[in-house]
Amino acid sequence: MSSTRDIDNLIELMAKLPGLGPRSARRAVLHLIRKRALLLTPLADQISVVAETARECLNCGNVGTADICDICESEKRATGELCVVEDVADLWAMERAGVFKGRYHVLGGTLSALDGVGPDDLRIPRLRDRVASEGITEVILALNATVDGQTTAHYIAEQLDGQVRLTSLAQGVPIGGELDYLDDGTITAALRARKEL
Amino acid sequence: MSSTRDIDNLIELMAKLPGLGPRSARRAVLHLIRKRALLLTPLADQISVVAETARECLNCGNVGTADICDICESEKRATGELCVVEDVADLWAMERAGVFKGRYHVLGGTLSALDGVGPDDLRIPRLRDRVASEGITEVILALNATVDGQTTAHYIAEQLDGQVRLTSLAQGVPIGGELDYLDDGTITAALRARKEL
Repeated sequence: MSSTRDIDNLIELMAKLPGLGPRSARRAVLHLIRKRALLLTPLADQISVVAETARECLNCGNVGTADICDICESEKRATGELCVVEDVADLWAMERAGVFKGRYHVLGGTLSALDGVGPDDLRIPRLRDRVASEGITEVILALNATVDGQTTAHYIAEQLDGQVRLTSLAQGVPIGGELDYLDDGTITAALRARKEL
Repeated sequence: MSSTRDIDNLIELMAKLPGLGPRSARRAVLHLIRKRALLLTPLADQISVVAETARECLNCGNVGTADICDICESEKRATGELCVVEDVADLWAMERAGVFKGRYHVLGGTLSALDGVGPDDLRIPRLRDRVASEGITEVILALNATVDGQTTAHYIAEQLDGQVRLTSLAQGVPIGGELDYLDDGTITAALRARKEL
């Protein structure tokens, strides 16, 4: 089917997105073609715009459309607190919660001996620079509660020890969580960190 | 976050694809931005190409990049057999099986009194024209084994009765299927259509 090669190529590309396989990519492409005016043309335009403009913030690693992202640029953000996250998706999750008013630092992954990821492959040197130069008083380690995330948190804590106040997100029962459905590790953590009423 | 509006817009558009929600659209867009050279730029180009070139075949309703699709154009396809399917995705599934050598007719949906879909909203008038003019000897109704699909098959069978040989896909135990996991309807159909060994 030579003249449908364009469509096949698009399906192949779409199938490389996380969460889509060959089957769902086919469905998505057919849906796009059916909704040409509503979806296909706007998506074509928008994806070209993003392909041209999207870049990583030189300061914190967030994704935006300028060399320095909105959060780093904003004068409304508190300057003393720096929240360290693994990934831009984690930064977006924190922003959706809307509770943190400081700035971020995106590591771009976690230390991993198995995958050969060392401190220089992440934005850890840049983190040390920022702590030294930006008047940071508190570094909040908001890394995922996984083995790699916690290893990375320990490494960063060692590096910054004594220079700044170090904190991490509390671990415990999630809001709306039922004990019966929680894993043992979470219950253990929640019990150890129990609070006076 | 004004300067990230482009990225937010892209996420919103991606979230409208079947199989993607807001969360997976965010993941997909971040993945795209990270793999700019490998994925984002090629996808931007390819989706623009498809937005410009994709169209429905005027003859059968298949999706392609020309007014008449490859299958209708091909001289290698048998001219006497016409396979009627609901949807382009069904046509593609038949083509993947690679067993049918005739041409197709895509209805573009099924009759549905509830949704107000009548024969003129589907490609049923065009099907009658084709049967009359293309020297069709057999119409294979390859509609889904759903209530709407079977209602549509009955309606088409009535319309074409006496003009052409009418067949439908066999119903029974799928290859690799285990009786214990099959629904009652399938087992009933398979028993009724049992064959001599």
